[in-house]
Amino acid sequence: MAILRRKKSKLVEAEEKRSDLGFGTQITDPDTRLLNRDGSFNVKRIGGNFWGRYNIFNELIICSWKRFFTLIVAFYLVLNLIFACLYQAVGIENLQGVDLSTKGTGFMDAFFFSSQTLTTVGYGRIAPIGFGASTIAAIESLLGLLIFALATSLLYGRFSRPVARVLYSDKAVIAPYLDITGFMFRIVNEQDSQLIDLQVEVAVSMLKKQSDGKTVRRYYGLKLERSKVNFFPTNWTIVHPITDESPLFGLTQDDLLTSDAEFLVLLKATEDTYNQTVNSRTSFHAREVIVGAKFLPMFSDVAGAGVVTLDLRKLSDIQEIPLSSEYQPHQ
Amino acid sequence: MAILRRKKSKLVEAEEKRSDLGFGTQITDPDTRLLNRDGSFNVKRIGGNFWGRYNIFNELIICSWKRFFTLIVAFYLVLNLIFACLYQAVGIENLQGVDLSTKGTGFMDAFFFSSQTLTTVGYGRIAPIGFGASTIAAIESLLGLLIFALATSLLYGRFSRPVARVLYSDKAVIAPYLDITGFMFRIVNEQDSQLIDLQVEVAVSMLKKQSDGKTVRRYYGLKLERSKVNFFPTNWTIVHPITDESPLFGLTQDDLLTSDAEFLVLLKATEDTYNQTVNSRTSFHAREVIVGAKFLPMFSDVAGAGVVTLDLRKLSDIQEIPLSSEYQPHQ
Amino acid sequence: MAILRRKKSKLVEAEEKRSDLGFGTQITDPDTRLLNRDGSFNVKRIGGNFWGRYNIFNELIICSWKRFFTLIVAFYLVLNLIFACLYQAVGIENLQGVDLSTKGTGFMDAFFFSSQTLTTVGYGRIAPIGFGASTIAAIESLLGLLIFALATSLLYGRFSRPVARVLYSDKAVIAPYLDITGFMFRIVNEQDSQLIDLQVEVAVSMLKKQSDGKTVRRYYGLKLERSKVNFFPTNWTIVHPITDESPLFGLTQDDLLTSDAEFLVLLKATEDTYNQTVNSRTSFHAREVIVGAKFLPMFSDVAGAGVVTLDLRKLSDIQEIPLSSEYQPHQ
Amino acid sequence: MAILRRKKSKLVEAEEKRSDLGFGTQITDPDTRLLNRDGSFNVKRIGGNFWGRYNIFNELIICSWKRFFTLIVAFYLVLNLIFACLYQAVGIENLQGVDLSTKGTGFMDAFFFSSQTLTTVGYGRIAPIGFGASTIAAIESLLGLLIFALATSLLYGRFSRPVARVLYSDKAVIAPYLDITGFMFRIVNEQDSQLIDLQVEVAVSMLKKQSDGKTVRRYYGLKLERSKVNFFPTNWTIVHPITDESPLFGLTQDDLLTSDAEFLVLLKATEDTYNQTVNSRTSFHAREVIVGAKFLPMFSDVAGAGVVTLDLRKLSDIQEIPLSSEYQPHQ
Repeated sequence: MAILRRKKSKLVEAEEKRSDLGFGTQITDPDTRLLNRDGSFNVKRIGGNFWGRYNIFNELIICSWKRFFTLIVAFYLVLNLIFACLYQAVGIENLQGVDLSTKGTGFMDAFFFSSQTLTTVGYGRIAPIGFGASTIAAIESLLGLLIFALATSLLYGRFSRPVARVLYSDKAVIAPYLDITGFMFRIVNEQDSQLIDLQVEVAVSMLKKQSDGKTVRRYYGLKLERSKVNFFPTNWTIVHPITDESPLFGLTQDDLLTSDAEFLVLLKATEDTYNQTVNSRTSFHAREVIVGAKFLPMFSDVAGAGVVTLDLRKLSDIQEIPLSSEYQPHQ
Repeated sequence: MAILRRKKSKLVEAEEKRSDLGFGTQITDPDTRLLNRDGSFNVKRIGGNFWGRYNIFNELIICSWKRFFTLIVAFYLVLNLIFACLYQAVGIENLQGVDLSTKGTGFMDAFFFSSQTLTTVGYGRIAPIGFGASTIAAIESLLGLLIFALATSLLYGRFSRPVARVLYSDKAVIAPYLDITGFMFRIVNEQDSQLIDLQVEVAVSMLKKQSDGKTVRRYYGLKLERSKVNFFPTNWTIVHPITDESPLFGLTQDDLLTSDAEFLVLLKATEDTYNQTVNSRTSFHAREVIVGAKFLPMFSDVAGAGVVTLDLRKLSDIQEIPLSSEYQPHQ
Repeated sequence: MAILRRKKSKLVEAEEKRSDLGFGTQITDPDTRLLNRDGSFNVKRIGGNFWGRYNIFNELIICSWKRFFTLIVAFYLVLNLIFACLYQAVGIENLQGVDLSTKGTGFMDAFFFSSQTLTTVGYGRIAPIGFGASTIAAIESLLGLLIFALATSLLYGRFSRPVARVLYSDKAVIAPYLDITGFMFRIVNEQDSQLIDLQVEVAVSMLKKQSDGKTVRRYYGLKLERSKVNFFPTNWTIVHPITDESPLFGLTQDDLLTSDAEFLVLLKATEDTYNQTVNSRTSFHAREVIVGAKFLPMFSDVAGAGVVTLDLRKLSDIQEIPLSSEYQPHQ
Repeated sequence: MAILRRKKSKLVEAEEKRSDLGFGTQITDPDTRLLNRDGSFNVKRIGGNFWGRYNIFNELIICSWKRFFTLIVAFYLVLNLIFACLYQAVGIENLQGVDLSTKGTGFMDAFFFSSQTLTTVGYGRIAPIGFGASTIAAIESLLGLLIFALATSLLYGRFSRPVARVLYSDKAVIAPYLDITGFMFRIVNEQDSQLIDLQVEVAVSMLKKQSDGKTVRRYYGLKLERSKVNFFPTNWTIVHPITDESPLFGLTQDDLLTSDAEFLVLLKATEDTYNQTVNSRTSFHAREVIVGAKFLPMFSDVAGAGVVTLDLRKLSDIQEIPLSSEYQPHQ
């Protein structure tokens, strides 16, 4: 008898229509945010092989410049100390030219000889003689070259990594939009280099009670006034018109808070200098949505005629604006 | 009562059909061009964090070779001067081999010792002794390696950056096209390396008076005879046939000028050497459109049979051609 | 008379509808797997130009770190030996400063001089004099620079190569799914860096007897509950619901084994650090499919509230679960 | 009166349906091939700015390894000669340690000193003294670093450039296909590293006489049995079934030759090591199409059971096969 059989059912059809962003339906703790504001995921991972999970190169590419240079200097110091000890172990007198007057000056010169070898500057005032010291120096200079190759890779990686520095307004708003209302937030490109071909997707995640009483997390894509633009030289207010087709239609502000609504934003663009695709993510929790406010213009009149001037500081400037009586919250 | 409600209205539907390239509707000053001819945006940005906005690495990738090498040489000089001063500060006699006959020769030798350390050439005629000078030299040689790593990154970045050097004809023309007229401009690949899979989008931006008397900027995509080609070994004349479906249909030349019409061109292609996607932009203002002219062929008979010869200098060669009476301007 | 003519036939139409993943229909040996579990292809290639087929650079990019460093050290040793011999050939006395007391010390110093030249450390305690030795040293230092340039390229290539370290569950299962059954396997991202925009395709390859008695290999795409997700911070169970539209519909477990069924998985994603597209492949042979089992949750309660915790070690944890009587195998 | 007006005509509609690969309609010389067999374009370009057209970096990336190394060695020699002359110009006695016994030895030592400076090996046996020689050396060592940075860039560029080494069969064939005939050619991946997600487009270009007696070049896409495959571990025979929908339908072999038919092939794939998109092109002229032949299998029985073995040398192996009488040529 066949083990793999059964007609397609309504349950399957219903499931097929459901969307899922990849978080699954099981995250239902109301204190648990899915995406942090900076776009990172609110998931902790345990188990797994350390070397499989952790990528030191990526870490050094992503970390701050301060941390990067501190690590380089620390590494340089430690490596020179180790090699100075090695030279001392084989006998510091094998380094021709070393100041042997005291133990201290000998170690110091071994340390500096190590730094001259590691960076391949090799003045030669101090130089190795004999098999032991020469071998250590040969290894150290090879290591120096490889480390330097690594540093070049890291620097290039840090600089050439495509990053979309898109700034998001602090809050999203529910504002009047044409003759209805809209869910809106505003973005601007922080960098002077251009982003082109932007595409934005917005979804809302809400807790829903199933017919069996179990609470699950559901996801609904939000239709946008415009989900793509070719150019992004100024600001862009992304608008989801709350029509009768919207999953937000008919909800009160309390409904959003109670259902732990989180608006997830996924943005793609092409960075114009390298023509690389870049991504940016953020989320607005129901608590970060202001009902009855609109964004103020970001244009400025500082420059003369013929040039459009945009003031980046005005990104989150909003103004309270009463929604028409039929949208008033809490009535 | 629900705050988020209202049926989808006609206003919303109309807005959904409108296209926007990302410039918005508010730029209505007739002197204000959206895109400059070189493809840059005519927007000035103020405010914002300097380090967030400005990317020195990108700047050094994009700038001219002359500027790039001037900066490198200047940086090399300044850095050597700074380190020469540091060596002098700890006592120039700590540099073994320095010519101490005069203060000048001492500083000069410190300067050259610095250059030998920074480039890691380290001849050793001059070499540091003692803690102070050795420490500075150790730092300088590390710095030298990092700077050199940076230079490698910059050079690779400059060379490998995908750039579409597409040349556009100086003017666009309105020329006879089959039995109607067409808006045309011509492009050619400046570089000998190939571009493939070209895609071009052309839109026109015009000022429109709304029913409430307010002037807004509107955008209309222009349908092209061909918007994609697989290969681009010769020239390509991009044609928008002005049929009754065109937003240009029925307009006079004066209408174009009055409405501040600007034709925005966005081109994408794949650079064949690295298989990278490249972008190119330009715009033709109504003032740069010649009514009643056609492009002359760019083929040349210089080479013998069996080889197609293209003369890049003929890109903007046009010839006046009377439009049939029904298209004559200003009648 | 025309040579190229004949109306489109039913045979052609039937062929057009058939899918082929690129393995062809001729691989029908039941012992022959198409894809190995690690995603490599089970194909041996002979003939062809060695240099055309084999890419040493790619090999050095892909090989393990242990192998990579062993090769570098071996190469360094061999190259220094070769150059030491060359210096000896032109007369070791042309290396100023070499310890000529015995033949052994002379060769040893030539060897270390070579290493100092190759790494460009150049202490100068030993230095070439005369045309022969100087020429060899000039060549060696150039070679050193090029080798180092190569090492930089290799290191950067190794680190920046986009790799999707997706872990697949050891087995696939046939489990209850809603009110039917489903073919399921589970994946998780091994690395802490994010994968986004995952797309997965699953196909099944089975041997089929044609009407002419010949056995051919056929391929059928499997429709998935979800074939794309935007984010992948936790695990993802990929489900093919076995509805009446499925090629698996009505088959018994024995049918799968007899027809040498192999489930081919092709996954694409975007690596979030560099925004590069990555691929991952695997296959599940009928022997690696457990009928009547389901995956256990991977979430863990280790961390406190507000954070979702995922335990990577639970990826392949399954539990036997009886399929409802109508799906029982072997009845 | 409006200048831009006229209803859409049938002429425009007909043009819209025509396809063009980007070569245009004007290349009608029957001796002129569009694409060479190696995928390069048969177009000569004149005029234009040399620096705009020619990209030395790309040239050095694309050229053969032999040429690349010859250029590097030549450049190294010339640069050292130039600097040796410069050192001589400021007075060779400013290089401490130079053998001044004859003019020849002095120049030789200056030359080798230059090489030691350029590669930053800097032994120090010879070292600059005084302003002139030190300045030249400081410039040369900076130049050395930059050149080396360039060499690193070039090597990385050469190695990491994505190249699809797809081998095409020498000839295309018209062979029996199911119960009709098909236009076929065969490809195989020369490299052992995998190509995935192959897409192939085939078009035929033929000269056509227009109703006005003018001969123009027209392009027709050819519908393929399969235009995409996921994997490409073995060979792939690309088939265009010549049904009644084909532009080849009803043509004789002579028709193909007379109309100067050229089959243009454009292939895209993803290289699996770097996940980069690669392109490959070729063309088959009517003279390179054999009517009445089929490709022989490329599989080999060399390896044992359980492994599929592919012999790359059999790529172009064909066998004559008579087409059924209705397709016989020249009747």
